[in-house]
This record gives sequence, C-alpha cells and structure tokens, in this order.
Amino acid sequence: MHPEQLDTPRGPTALSEQALAEVDAQWRAANYLAVGQIYLMANALLREPLRPEHVKPRLLGHWGTSPGLNLVYTHLNRVIKDRDLNAICIWGPGHGGPAVLAGSWIDGSYTQTYPDITRDEAGMARLFRQFSFPGGVPSHVAPETPGSIHEGGELGYSLSHAYGAALDNPDLLVACVIGDGEAETGPLAASWHSNKFLDPVHDGAVLPILQLNGYKIANPAVLARLPEPELDELLRGYGHHPLHVTGNDPHAVHQAMAHAMDQALDMIAAIQRSARVELVTDRPRWPVIVLRTPKGWTGPREVDGVPVEGTWRAHQVPLAEVRDNAGHLRLLEAWLRSYRPEELFDEHGRPREQVLACLPPGEHRLGANPHANGGLLTRELPVPPLDEYAVPVDKPGTVLHEPTRILGELLEQVMEATAGRRDFRLVGPDETASNRLQAVYKATDKAWEAEVLPTDEHLARGGRVMEILSEHTCQGWLEGYLLTGRHGLFSCYEAFVHIIDSMVNQHIKWLRTTRRLPWRAPIPSLNYLLTSHVWRQDHNGFSHQDPGFVDHVLNKSPEAVRVYMPPDTNTLLATADHVLRSRGYVNVVVAGKQPCFDWLTLEEALGHCARGAGIWQWAGTEDGTREPDVVLACAGDVPTQEVLAAADLLRRHLPDLAVRVVNVVDIARLLPAEEHPHGMPDSEYDALFTRDKPVIFAYHGYPWLIHRLTYRRTGHPHLHVRGYKEEGTTTTPFDMVVRNDLDRYRLVMDVIDRVPGLSVRAAVVRQQMADARARHHSWIREHGIDLPEVANWTWPH
Amino acid sequence: MHPEQLDTPRGPTALSEQALAEVDAQWRAANYLAVGQIYLMANALLREPLRPEHVKPRLLGHWGTSPGLNLVYTHLNRVIKDRDLNAICIWGPGHGGPAVLAGSWIDGSYTQTYPDITRDEAGMARLFRQFSFPGGVPSHVAPETPGSIHEGGELGYSLSHAYGAALDNPDLLVACVIGDGEAETGPLAASWHSNKFLDPVHDGAVLPILQLNGYKIANPAVLARLPEPELDELLRGYGHHPLHVTGNDPHAVHQAMAHAMDQALDMIAAIQRSARVELVTDRPRWPVIVLRTPKGWTGPREVDGVPVEGTWRAHQVPLAEVRDNAGHLRLLEAWLRSYRPEELFDEHGRPREQVLACLPPGEHRLGANPHANGGLLTRELPVPPLDEYAVPVDKPGTVLHEPTRILGELLEQVMEATAGRRDFRLVGPDETASNRLQAVYKATDKAWEAEVLPTDEHLARGGRVMEILSEHTCQGWLEGYLLTGRHGLFSCYEAFVHIIDSMVNQHIKWLRTTRRLPWRAPIPSLNYLLTSHVWRQDHNGFSHQDPGFVDHVLNKSPEAVRVYMPPDTNTLLATADHVLRSRGYVNVVVAGKQPCFDWLTLEEALGHCARGAGIWQWAGTEDGTREPDVVLACAGDVPTQEVLAAADLLRRHLPDLAVRVVNVVDIARLLPAEEHPHGMPDSEYDALFTRDKPVIFAYHGYPWLIHRLTYRRTGHPHLHVRGYKEEGTTTTPFDMVVRNDLDRYRLVMDVIDRVPGLSVRAAVVRQQMADARARHHSWIREHGIDLPEVANWTWPH
Repeated sequence: MHPEQLDTPRGPTALSEQALAEVDAQWRAANYLAVGQIYLMANALLREPLRPEHVKPRLLGHWGTSPGLNLVYTHLNRVIKDRDLNAICIWGPGHGGPAVLAGSWIDGSYTQTYPDITRDEAGMARLFRQFSFPGGVPSHVAPETPGSIHEGGELGYSLSHAYGAALDNPDLLVACVIGDGEAETGPLAASWHSNKFLDPVHDGAVLPILQLNGYKIANPAVLARLPEPELDELLRGYGHHPLHVTGNDPHAVHQAMAHAMDQALDMIAAIQRSARVELVTDRPRWPVIVLRTPKGWTGPREVDGVPVEGTWRAHQVPLAEVRDNAGHLRLLEAWLRSYRPEELFDEHGRPREQVLACLPPGEHRLGANPHANGGLLTRELPVPPLDEYAVPVDKPGTVLHEPTRILGELLEQVMEATAGRRDFRLVGPDETASNRLQAVYKATDKAWEAEVLPTDEHLARGGRVMEILSEHTCQGWLEGYLLTGRHGLFSCYEAFVHIIDSMVNQHIKWLRTTRRLPWRAPIPSLNYLLTSHVWRQDHNGFSHQDPGFVDHVLNKSPEAVRVYMPPDTNTLLATADHVLRSRGYVNVVVAGKQPCFDWLTLEEALGHCARGAGIWQWAGTEDGTREPDVVLACAGDVPTQEVLAAADLLRRHLPDLAVRVVNVVDIARLLPAEEHPHGMPDSEYDALFTRDKPVIFAYHGYPWLIHRLTYRRTGHPHLHVRGYKEEGTTTTPFDMVVRNDLDRYRLVMDVIDRVPGLSVRAAVVRQQMADARARHHSWIREHGIDLPEVANWTWPH
Repeated sequence: MHPEQLDTPRGPTALSEQALAEVDAQWRAANYLAVGQIYLMANALLREPLRPEHVKPRLLGHWGTSPGLNLVYTHLNRVIKDRDLNAICIWGPGHGGPAVLAGSWIDGSYTQTYPDITRDEAGMARLFRQFSFPGGVPSHVAPETPGSIHEGGELGYSLSHAYGAALDNPDLLVACVIGDGEAETGPLAASWHSNKFLDPVHDGAVLPILQLNGYKIANPAVLARLPEPELDELLRGYGHHPLHVTGNDPHAVHQAMAHAMDQALDMIAAIQRSARVELVTDRPRWPVIVLRTPKGWTGPREVDGVPVEGTWRAHQVPLAEVRDNAGHLRLLEAWLRSYRPEELFDEHGRPREQVLACLPPGEHRLGANPHANGGLLTRELPVPPLDEYAVPVDKPGTVLHEPTRILGELLEQVMEATAGRRDFRLVGPDETASNRLQAVYKATDKAWEAEVLPTDEHLARGGRVMEILSEHTCQGWLEGYLLTGRHGLFSCYEAFVHIIDSMVNQHIKWLRTTRRLPWRAPIPSLNYLLTSHVWRQDHNGFSHQDPGFVDHVLNKSPEAVRVYMPPDTNTLLATADHVLRSRGYVNVVVAGKQPCFDWLTLEEALGHCARGAGIWQWAGTEDGTREPDVVLACAGDVPTQEVLAAADLLRRHLPDLAVRVVNVVDIARLLPAEEHPHGMPDSEYDALFTRDKPVIFAYHGYPWLIHRLTYRRTGHPHLHVRGYKEEGTTTTPFDMVVRNDLDRYRLVMDVIDRVPGLSVRAAVVRQQMADARARHHSWIREHGIDLPEVANWTWPH
C-alpha cells in the first residue's frame, strides 16, 4: 500500500449517515468474527479478559485478505438488497475463509446449512472453534462453505469460474474478487479476455473486483506496483472500464466502495438494456473495480517493533505467539475490542439490528443463492435416442467411420434440444472442428463478441460453442458452468489436457468433498473427450504425444473418476450417452477422430459398454470346451485394431491356437472391486482373463498403468502389456505402433514367445512377423506411407 | 487480416534499393524452401514441370505462420549483421518448422550441423524430403533444429523462455515471435510482466514480436480482433512501447519491418546505455513489434472458390489434393514459381549472392549461436563442500532440523560463489521464504524492477532469486536459463507443481531427444525442490495436498528423469549436491521444511544417497543370522519417521520379532535395471527386501506407484504399501498420517497382520495399537493438537 495513495476516495458520497453506520457495523462484525475464528476457542464474546487458554494452540488461517473480503461481502449485501439482485460471488482470495464464513454466519445462511452453528453466542463459539480445528472446517473457502462454488486453494481460476457461472444466466450478477497475487498467474491473466465471449443478451454479468492489498506471501504484487495510469491501460486493454476505490479510513472507503458499486451496476444495467432492448451489438466495455486497501487492514499496525498492517507480515496470522507472549495477548484483545463487539452483538451473542439491516432476504443472500449449489437447478439433459446416430455394422471391421464426427451429430441434436433452455455448452481450445465435431455448427455457433469479418464462419454472439486457445480458460468456464448446474463437454487434444492437470485435481477434490455434504446437490459431470490422441498425431509428432492424463486422473478419489476408451463409433455413442447423463463425476473419454473400423452394432455396443469389458467371441478362436491358450486384450481404438489384426494373423498362421480377444472400455473395471466402484470382483476378472494363461494386453497409454490396476489379480504374473513408451515423431500411424512395439506383428511375436509348447511352425511364423517389421522399416523410409498390407487390411469374412 | 489495415506501413523508408532487393531475395528463398519442404519429395528446383509423383504422399506441416517467420528471420539477419549483434530467436509459432529450417539452411548452419544436407541442389532435395517424412525431421521447430531452444509444440512458453535466456546475458538480444494463438494462453499472458524482473544492467534484452495473422486453427485470434488503440493500451499496460508493422505488399512491409527493427534496437540500446552508463534506475518501457501480415501470405489466394490466403484455411496445407487434383497441382507449381527460384538459386541449387548478402557471419548466425546450444557454454557449478553445512548427528532421531532451511545455507554459498559469474538462479512462486530457503538473501536479493517501498525487504534490480506468483512463468524462465547453459533450482509447493505438468513433459521430451543428437551439448539439469508437502500443509489443507507429480514424471523417458526423497537434513544436502552438479536430467527432490529428525551423519548420508536405498541396521532388530521376519520400508521424511516410530514400538512390544528397516532415497532404484538406468538388479532387490517376507512400505505419495515400480519383483506378492490416499483437510500432522493409515500404530498392526505365527502377545499389542488410534481421535477433537506421546517421541537411546 502506497502511503500517499491512502485516504483519497473519489466520487460523491453515496451512503446516508444511517446506511453508512449499518454498512460499517456489518463490516466490523465480520472482521470480529474473522479474527475470532483464527484465534479463539473460548470466550467468544470477550465476556472476560482474554487468557491464553481461550486461544487455540495452533494458529492457522489468513487474516491479510479478510477485511477486504468482508468489505466486498458487506457492500454486495447492500446492493443486492437495494436493487433486488440475483447475485453470487467468487472469492478468488479463498484463503480468506474466515471472512466468507463470517459473512454467511451473519446473513443466516450458515445456520440454515449447519443448524448446529446457531446465530448466537453458543453458535459463535462453535464457529470459532471449528475453524481450522481437527474435525472442523478447512481454513479456506471450500465446498463446506455455503454460497461458494470456488475452492480457495490453488489460485488462478476465479475469473473464468465467474464467467462460466454467468453464461446462460441472463439475470445473474457474478461478482468476482481477484487477489493481486492470483492476478499474476497465467490462467487468471488469460481469463480477462473472457469478456470477448460473454453475450450481454443471453448471459449474465461479471463484475471483477481486483483486490490490490499490495503483497503476496512475502513479496509485493506486480499489479499493485504499477503506476495507476499503467494499470488503467492494462485494464482498458483487457476491455474494461476501471473504477478505483482506494483508502484506509473505513468510512471514506465505505463511501467510495458504495459509489463504485453503484456506478458499476448502473453501467452493467445500461449495457444489458442497450443489448437486450436497443439491440446494440457493439462489444461493451464492462466495469472493473480496483480496490486498494491495506493488507490486514484494521489489524495490528506494528508487532515487536516492525510494521504489520499494510505489509506482507499480515498475510497469515499477524500475532503468532499469543499463548506465550503476554504482550501479543494484550494486542489481540485490543484488536478484537477495537471492533466494539458490544455494539454488534446483543447479550445472547446475536447480531444486532444494525448489523443485519442491509442484508438481502432468502435466496438472495450470498450464502443461500441456489446458483452456488447448482445441482438444485439441474435439469436432465435431453440426449436423443442413439439409434438415430448409430452406424450400421453388418460385418465387423469392414467399414470405417470417424467416431468423433458421428458424435458431433449427436451433440448437434443435444444443442438443438437445448436451444431454448440454454443449459449445454461445448468448450475447447480452438479444436472443435479439428476434432471433427463440426456438425454442432448446424445447431449453434461459436460464441464471439469481438469483431467479425466476412471470411469468418460460425461466429455469433449467442453461440454455445466456446473456443479460446487456453485450456485453462476453457476448463474454468466449464467448471463454472457445471458448478451452477448446467451441462457440458470439453474436447481437447489428448496431450495438452495435461495443461489443466492441476485444475482437474481441484475439481475432483471439490466433487469428492461435496459427496460427503448432504446439502450439496450433485452437479452434472465434467466430461472430457480426448481425441487427436497419441497414436494419430500425424501432423504434429512427439511434442503432441502424451496419453498420461488418464494416469493422473486415476490417482484421485475413485468415487469421482471414470475413464472410458471406446474402440469404435457405436461404443463412443454409448459412452457419450452415459457420461452426458451422469452427475458428480469427472469422466475421461479417449476416442479417435481418424477413420476407425466399426466393430460393434449399437445393440452390441450398449451391452459391451454396460459391462465395461468383455470377450469378443467372434474375434477369437476358442471352441468353448476349454480355456483359451492365450488372451489378447485391448483398450483404445488403435490397440483394438492391432489386436484384431494380430488375431487375424494368428487365425491364419496358427489355426490350432485357441485365442480369446477381450476388449476393455471402462478402464476402472480392471481395479479390484474394493478399490473402485466399477472395479470387478476377482471371479469376473478370472473368467475374462483366466488365472494362468498368458495375457497380451495392447493398451492405449503407458503400459504400467495396466499393471498398477491389476497387480492384485491372480493372473497378474502372466500379464504382458504393450503401450506407449515415449517413442514418437512426425510419422505414419503404423510406424507409431511399430516404434512402440504395439503393432500386430509384434503382438503375434509376443503370443508365440509366451504360449508354451507351440509347434515348430510357430517359430517360422515368428520369423515371418519379424520380417514384416523389417519390411515396414525399409518401405516407409522409401515411400513415406504405410505398407499396403497394413493400409488395406480389413477383418476377414 | 482486416482489409483496410493492409498496405499502411508507417515510418520513413529504411532500406536502400539494394538492401531491399537483398532482403526480399532472402525472404523469397525462405518461402520457396518452406513450400518445398511441405510438398516436394523430388524436382526440388522445378527443373521440369511438376508431376504428382514429385509430391509427397502425406502432406503435413503448417504453412500459415511460415512467411511471417521467414520475414522475421530475414530481418533479424539484417540487423544482426549491420549492428554486429549477439542474438537468438525464440519461435513461438513453432509449428512453422519449415520456415526456421529454411532460414538455417540459407545461413549455412544447417549444413554445418548436418553435413549431409548440403547447401546445393542435392541438399535441398534432402531438406525437402526429410521434412515430416518417416525417419526425417519433425514438422515443428524441435531439438533437431539448429538455433532453437524452444520446441514448437504446446504453446504458451515462448516469452518466458526468451526472458530466461536473456537473464544474466547482458550482451544478448533475444527476439521472440509470439503467435496470436499462443498469446491467448495463460502462460503467455502472464509472462508479459516478466519485464518487471529484467534488469537492464545485468540482463540482456528481449524483443517480443507479436505476429497477428488473424486466425488460429479455425477461429479468429482475440488480440488480432482488438481495435488497434485497445491493443496498444494492453501492450502499454504490459509495460511495452508498441511499434506496428502492417501490410501485405512485400516491399512496403520490408520497409516497415526494417524501420521498426531499427527503432526497437535503438530503443533497447538507449535503455541499456541509460541503465549501464547513466545509472538510471527507472523501469524502462521496452519496445514490442506488432506484425500484422496475412496468414499464409504469398500462398494461394483462393482454392476451389473460397479464400485461403489471409484466412484460417491457410493454417496447415492450403492445397490438400495435389496428387489427385490437376488444378491443385498447377496452383502449387504456380505458387512455387511465384518466388522466381531461378533468381534465388544458381544452377547447382546454391543460394545466389543476393540471397546471402545480408547474413551475419559465423556464430552470429541465428542457427549457429552457441547460446542456443547452451551446454557449450556451461561451467561447473561451484557447490561448496558439504561438511560446512552438515548437521552433527551423535544419535539418530534425537535432534530436529528443518532440512530446507539448512539447504538454504548451502544455496547461499552457491549464490555467493556465483556472484561474479552470475550463472545460478533460484525461482519460485512467492515461496522461497515460506519454503525456508531465506538464507539465500544474505548472498543475493529478489529480482524486482518495479516500485520499491520502505516496508519491502530483499528486493533489488540485480537479484538472482526470481519470484512471481506464476508457476508457469517460473518454469519458463528457468527452462530458458538452463537451455542457454546456466544452472538453477525451482522450489515449489508439492501440490501446485502440477500446474506445470505439461511444461515439464515438453522439457523432458526435449532432453530425451537432445540425448540422441551428438551435436547438442548437455545442459544443466532442471532441479525441483518440492516442499510444503502433502503431510505438512498445516495452514492449508486438502486443496494443497497432492503428491502425484512424481507419478507424472516417472511416466516419462527414464533416461531423463530422477526422483529423490531424502529423509533428513544431511541426506537432503547430499542429494542437492548431486543434482546441482548433474546435467541433462529433470531431478525431482521431495523434502520437508518442517522440523525433522536427523537420522544420518553426513558420511552416512553420502553413502546412503550413493546407494539410493539401503538397510538402516541400527533401526532394526535383526541378529544377522537369518532373514528378518518383516521388512519395514520407507521413502520420504514423514513416512520414515512413522516407520522408525513403528520399529521402536515393535522393539518394545515384540522384542523377539526380527525387523529390518529399509530406506529408499532414489525412487527409481525400485525399478528393474532394464527399465531405468538407476533400477536395481533383482539380486540386490531381493537382498534388501527378501524374496518372501512381508514388506510394509510406508511411502510419501500415492501407494500404487510403489506397486507399479516393483510388480516384477519376486517378493512383490508380499509387499503392502501405505501412502496418501486423498484423505486430508486442515488438521494436525499426526492426524494426517492417521487419516491415511500411514501412522506408526497402523504400521505395527500391518506387521502383526502379515507376519505368520506370532505369539498371543501380538494380538494384545495389536489391540493396544488400535486403542492408541482411538485415543488420538478423541484427544485431537478436544485439544486440537497431537497426543503428547506422539509429539514428544524420539528414537530411544
């Protein structure tokens, strides 16, 4: 905080003396409650002088941001009430859990959600004690916090969450507090441009509030140290109109904040009226509030001779030794009493009338708005009957389709059926057409509020396909959209979905925690379609080849994660139908966009996907009288093709060998039943894979994942997995599988190497396979395309 | 490209007629070579009319960005030569591989690197054929590309790489082309603020060139569709002075580009003079060039009746059916001939004098600058002798130290020893002090070019600690620094290092590929210190708990990845010494910052770390005459403490049980020798872990990782792993291990459950352990701190 910038609020006075007193009382109450949560486990109302044993033994929490968040909560309450707004708030500096909990306790939503935490002295004592206490509530804004859709942990996603929440909610205001630390992150920096995708007609409004309190954990924040004109240029360059609130005198700041809020809401109302009534189509310049108040405002100014308020030392717990240091204890008591709690709470510890005067009613309270418990608002997604989209399969492995292209037709119908309801969106980093889902453009367009040129296609203000070359922004938008109860799908190049590894971590943690909170209604699943995958990055190469997202997701809480690898078009449709209807999961669907053989009819696909894994009888050579000699297992479209080509080779060259082909769609089925809800019991596993026969498993991703899923199975010592092992470049599809030893010839060699007691003929066949691989190598270097016998292969009939 | 924006270059003419002709010839030659690479496998010089068989069967590559990149390459050549500059360029739109390969072939560095690709007709033919051809070179700028330190795959990191390269290279100019697609990504958006960390005295200059060709894969780019004044506000808000080059007439654009380059370099020279000679300390406003030329400029204007040049259709291969469509073939030939190759190449296919006229000499060529092959410039890092920093250990498990704090003292000395050389940097997202490395501030400061206030500490323009709340920017800076041959360390909260999962993927791929390129000198390793780890996120909680980065890294090429989990202070020192000296790896070191028992003396630590895994004889109860009854294994500081506490309990309660304690520091040692260079042979594994005794393994991260590493071992069926299983919240350290069944009591119960034939006494002990866990649960909810018997435990002596 720059000293000379303090105490210079601008603009006319907006609050009457009474309103000012009410706002200030509410804010002081919230500050008192925030400090109480961080420090106290008894004597909540300071009825007696503070003693060490009233103070928690472990002091955890973040004071620095809390008074600023309390200011925002209080002033939002005022305008929501005055203007009868429908509003939620995203608390970017979510480390300030004490502030948001305080706000919810004051507005009564906390007690409504947790009846045990009453709005009186006993409840206040429990509110204080539970904070950051074992068995209590986390220190950050979290799923447990009423009114929140945004975990205050990892930073960077507040603004994209806010935009996601505002999409297709034309009557909703989404306020969004962005900390100056968070503002340095990449995801946040990118998400400012979300205003080029927000339609003032069909979408609600986002009001960013940039909280510049000057310091992060231990450093000044970059944006806080820009000269104000430079910061204004930046914000105007982001397409915003900045409104400044600066100061450290509470009354002056209340006036400035009230004025800025009124200005901002008037601007938003004018923008919406202009777009909705006057049908103006210019991209509007939305307001942003820049709030500069000291870090740890109203806390201790100085401790042990060094400044605290307004510095990084106020970030967490400004007084750290309260139990052992009598001076610190006195400072804490003085600090708490500085809010004059006796004016704020009555003799029963209930907030006095003045504190409650400017609260909105019922569901308009920030802690009780149903948009922040989006599952309450969710409607079933109208997924059309699959038989209209299924491809006919007279004979398996004869006709090719591009699976994602057919899926695009299904999604077109979902878009069509939700055209009025507007509760389904498709997001992706500029890859919807590349991923061959472009049929959706028959039903909707790509959202685009910026300039449109004659050469552009499929851009429109009301479009429900969202494309920006930022996986982070796509993910943030979709999360915000789902968390407020709507449906969606993220299509992404498989390799680059790792960009949002950390975001999906946080979302899965959110889902896992909300499952344990009965008051949280389940929200629609977060669905990924990973395509342009490792085996078919023909245009790109090694940098675009990474199938490890599945490994990442499967490390997370099993109750919330699902992974599917449909091997053809009809299984993709069956999978999509399932995941689009589901709730509360992260579903990862890996499927190719390149032409792929159709193996199963729709009916077969539905049955196969329902089982998640099964024997493809027609593809094997078992006679049914005994166990097979070998199992060829596969998961993923390209491995399935190679396994079937290998089965074909074995049938032709070693017709006496009893081969079983098993395909796995639902990867978690491989886990033991006690490890994952989809895990299969040992009896079922043994029936599919046998207990002692060699299993050659061709897997889409890193081969060791299959081992980590199956190591407890009886047959595991006989399992041999082929998969991607980081061998790649710009090359042909078949060369990719050869480089990684996943090709049909290698699989046949694996079978011959592992089945005991084969005839001499097998050694000859093995040599033929090795010769075919050698032929491939020389052919491809000369011709640059795959061997004709590979390119033209079909399943024999 | 906005039609009315074309043909409006500004500024006076900068090039003489001769210079213009030379620049244009070089640019046309590069364009010809780029098209040739995408399309031709024969008839490189068009000596005969183009026939289908001259064209590659698979057309792969990205034309859209190439002419713009060629323009930059050409104009950089001019100014490097004219001004005798030392410069490299980061090619953000690295999909334009054909352009950068063309530039390198023209300046001779390609032939110097790959003598087989001569600068004549035969070499040109090979250059064309190898591009995106099996066995050839990838379609993107890649490690194989001379002069490059930046893989053109995933987008977002060009600018942070450029800054990393410029740090501590005061005489270097790092040009950086940023595509308008890349500019939408979060990492790129954040990295603009890197100029607040670049010291004009000690660091070189970065010249960003924002390439606005209007379209991404299938969409307009956001920045290209901002009105120019809004874009200028944005760039000025980023702290830059924009210089515009706009047009589609080549000669006019050459003049404008030459003028802008001259302006920019004059500004840079003035800034550096002002800072270095006049000692001005104001933060300078660095230039940025905004280059607006059509996408696919000079390519086919229209194909099959739709516009191509200047639209997204020019993104990859503008003419897709050249082999089958005679019209396309004719268009391709006309396109190639439009560059007038006969004017550019002599009868032997060698570039004519005019093409070569404005090339810089020797190592000043962009393709030959040693900074882009940084290992050539690397000096050994002066790591001090460890005994000055080691903590004395008279008895194990008695005294506590904070391991990272002691490491900070070692790093202080490294900073001190490199104060003159300036080839070591520490980066981190505002966590250096939180991670307790603050001793480094005795030797250097945090780099900070923005405003400084009296309350700030340790900020300075020349500081070599880099802190910004952006893991992406930290990672990008460090990668750029390492790739140009210097040393560094990234300290990061363990959970949030997932933010750069995808970046580390790309870096590991780079390292893996360069290992196969003899001309690339090995660069210093990328070293991570992951601390504030899953078991000790006391202040935060569930959102901050994720130990999965190790799993992610271990999926990658084994030749390039190493993971260490030192269990105490001296082992951390030994590990740090090793990784700081190493080259060519990504080293992940996981170590706590909280007080941790010292177990090993420095000498023991050095021996233990050299072995990577070993028996801690003193901690077990083996008598040496037979195999132990059970092995207690551990990896990570907290699991090691719990295992030793469990060993202590077993010694006291079941003294007849022969317990072995094994500690693993180097996680890859668990892998089979054929799977990883550090993997141990089965004989060694069996000697440590036995072949058939129960092994209870307490592991720092997700338990299944240990299974995936060891599933091939004979003793694997007897291995039982405890680790983190996504159970967490804001709570005490011991409650965290209890929640995840990793605590000492649970480990003792595991032993009793798994060792056959134990006495009746064991059942009693088991119940005592269960009781202790119950006591923990009730105690902690009442007191909020851990049981005294846990908090006060030490290893008995």
